[in-house]
Amino acid sequence: MMVQPAAPMTHSAAAGRVRSSAIRDLLAVAGRDDVISLAGGMPAPEAFPTRELADAIAGLLAHDPGGALQYSATEGYGPLRERIAADHSPGPDHVLVTSGSQQALELVVRTLVDPGADVVLADPGYVGAIQVLRLVGAHLVGVASDDDGLLVDDLGRRLARGLRPALVYLVPNFDNPTGASLSAERARALAHLADHYGFVIVVDDPYRHLRWAGEAPPPLESLTGRVVTLGSFSKVFCPGLRVGYAVAPPPTIRAMALVKQAADLHTASLNQRATYQLISEPGFLESHLVRLRSLYQAKAAALVAALHVRLGDRLAFREPEGGMFIWGRLTSAGAGAEALLGPAIAAGVAFVPGAAFGVGSGLTRHLRLSFATATADRLDVAAERLGRALSASEASFAAS
Amino acid sequence: MMVQPAAPMTHSAAAGRVRSSAIRDLLAVAGRDDVISLAGGMPAPEAFPTRELADAIAGLLAHDPGGALQYSATEGYGPLRERIAADHSPGPDHVLVTSGSQQALELVVRTLVDPGADVVLADPGYVGAIQVLRLVGAHLVGVASDDDGLLVDDLGRRLARGLRPALVYLVPNFDNPTGASLSAERARALAHLADHYGFVIVVDDPYRHLRWAGEAPPPLESLTGRVVTLGSFSKVFCPGLRVGYAVAPPPTIRAMALVKQAADLHTASLNQRATYQLISEPGFLESHLVRLRSLYQAKAAALVAALHVRLGDRLAFREPEGGMFIWGRLTSAGAGAEALLGPAIAAGVAFVPGAAFGVGSGLTRHLRLSFATATADRLDVAAERLGRALSASEASFAAS
Repeated sequence: MMVQPAAPMTHSAAAGRVRSSAIRDLLAVAGRDDVISLAGGMPAPEAFPTRELADAIAGLLAHDPGGALQYSATEGYGPLRERIAADHSPGPDHVLVTSGSQQALELVVRTLVDPGADVVLADPGYVGAIQVLRLVGAHLVGVASDDDGLLVDDLGRRLARGLRPALVYLVPNFDNPTGASLSAERARALAHLADHYGFVIVVDDPYRHLRWAGEAPPPLESLTGRVVTLGSFSKVFCPGLRVGYAVAPPPTIRAMALVKQAADLHTASLNQRATYQLISEPGFLESHLVRLRSLYQAKAAALVAALHVRLGDRLAFREPEGGMFIWGRLTSAGAGAEALLGPAIAAGVAFVPGAAFGVGSGLTRHLRLSFATATADRLDVAAERLGRALSASEASFAAS
Repeated sequence: MMVQPAAPMTHSAAAGRVRSSAIRDLLAVAGRDDVISLAGGMPAPEAFPTRELADAIAGLLAHDPGGALQYSATEGYGPLRERIAADHSPGPDHVLVTSGSQQALELVVRTLVDPGADVVLADPGYVGAIQVLRLVGAHLVGVASDDDGLLVDDLGRRLARGLRPALVYLVPNFDNPTGASLSAERARALAHLADHYGFVIVVDDPYRHLRWAGEAPPPLESLTGRVVTLGSFSKVFCPGLRVGYAVAPPPTIRAMALVKQAADLHTASLNQRATYQLISEPGFLESHLVRLRSLYQAKAAALVAALHVRLGDRLAFREPEGGMFIWGRLTSAGAGAEALLGPAIAAGVAFVPGAAFGVGSGLTRHLRLSFATATADRLDVAAERLGRALSASEASFAAS
């Protein structure tokens, strides 16, 4: 039995800088059976490699439980580091295996950013990055983006006027929330700026394997050495194993590994080895990715078609070429996306209002819709409910 | 292909405060086949519940892969939180499931400690705690301990003279490295001091189930509300799943969960559910703990007997009543424990010199020996090798 304290415990200044996020609150809503969630970034469960994973884990526990279940090295399971390194870099000393790519992001920020330092990111930007940057006390500098990704020219002008960021964070393929990919021209210009001004580019790239159309930018790590690349197996296999990684120059990997050692010793041994089994099974990853892209393309097409039918021109958006999200803008008169959320949940559909992703901007009319989780049939029902909620919201706004 | 950077990336002040630890460097040595490691705190692999875990995971992947492999709530899997809460507290809102108890420790320190704040811990103390405290920039205040644990009277005198720590960290059962347990009298005195001076006691308790003799102190959470308790399944089941937890008042759990959300979103879903299956299987945990205690007691007895035979009175130590460690003191003339490590590894045995655990103290003659990992036969060989290395070290010291 626990005694209740007389007075609350005093929390640190760092703890006071982070607040509950829309992602977090909506993960709760997403769990309700009567709500179709277009809100979370939950990958399609029907694409999880469940049988292959079950076989891999059964094999590991049958043949090497002492390895799979014991403490292991902070940097990660050796063969997995080598396999990741082969895709990116000269060797495994460039790789740190992490507990999801969210941890990779947090470790690189703690390793490279001092409190008060300027950090550039797209505005709107990824909520998980905003939270990490606030937690370490960074000063967030938002740069706008368009259909070709971050406005690198704008960044260049601010650098010329004296901005000296510790790092620039971006999602080059299918940005979260806007879905935009960085153009090749802007990728080259950004790499040039990094070399010239001496900042680090943190490339968060969880969606790069989910492209079915359009052209990917060249990898930034091929254009400049001032890059830390973050990768994830959450979208390729499944999120529930929490296996991701960072690729960076060895001195930075060593510094990140020391922070990781204090943070959680190492990523779960069993999960790393099971992931390794899946990616080293000859031919499996390639054929799995073909199926995955085809599944997501069909889901995106289903939501696009349903939105056209159910909302018409009341929602403007670009058709996705990959990733997991549609970034829409309400074109009709009305109270905006935040005011729409309550009626939408009441009608049985959830989304994330654009304001949740704002760094400094006030995004009142945007919303993010994920097509990744629900089936095509449910995506149509979701669009129908969203249309109904929007009509009600417009009527109520007109009457007020 | 990755481009090499022209200049190294600049690291943060926080990253500069953590250094490679003896634990870390010795985990590397522990992997060499020709060295018997008494160094790491690796639980006995023969006691891992491998078959039960394989069955639990196979069942989860067969019946609910969409739950076991999907993103889940930051606070942890609901039924696991409830089960942990039942052992400690009024409800699951007092529980945060973490990626091992090392993460629980890091989250509570980041949530309760500002840079520059005083934090009290035993000197010598747990290396993982020392690293976390240095990383956040805490000011470490070491308090000595004896066979009855932390010298609470000494702490009381320093509090009376004006010390105002944010928290006091301790391992009440089988402290790492000293193996000492806190007496009931000191537990009550410490709880009284926490209430009087308003600090938080962080109770790190991974070894409490590994007691076969002596008396456990009353749980500190039953004596004062100013307690955060950290727990781990690493010593009870296996470390490779990385499942631990913190128990604290709900406002502190909520603040810790926000930091955890930025740090790694949540602990691996599959690992939490598999752990839950194991602890909720009727009768399994109890019978597993009986076997585990009996195994560790036998291993401790084997190492104690071997040390008596092979080192005689050249090593002074108290017989363990539980836990995983023997804390020894070299009584003979010689260069000390750090100088012994090289010859010992050359002879095929590893240990941790006491200096690795020093907060401010210079512990030249102490060493920590783990009896948890090796089999009884190998523990005897290890002691023989240690005796041989000590003789060589003494001879070399006498000749110098």
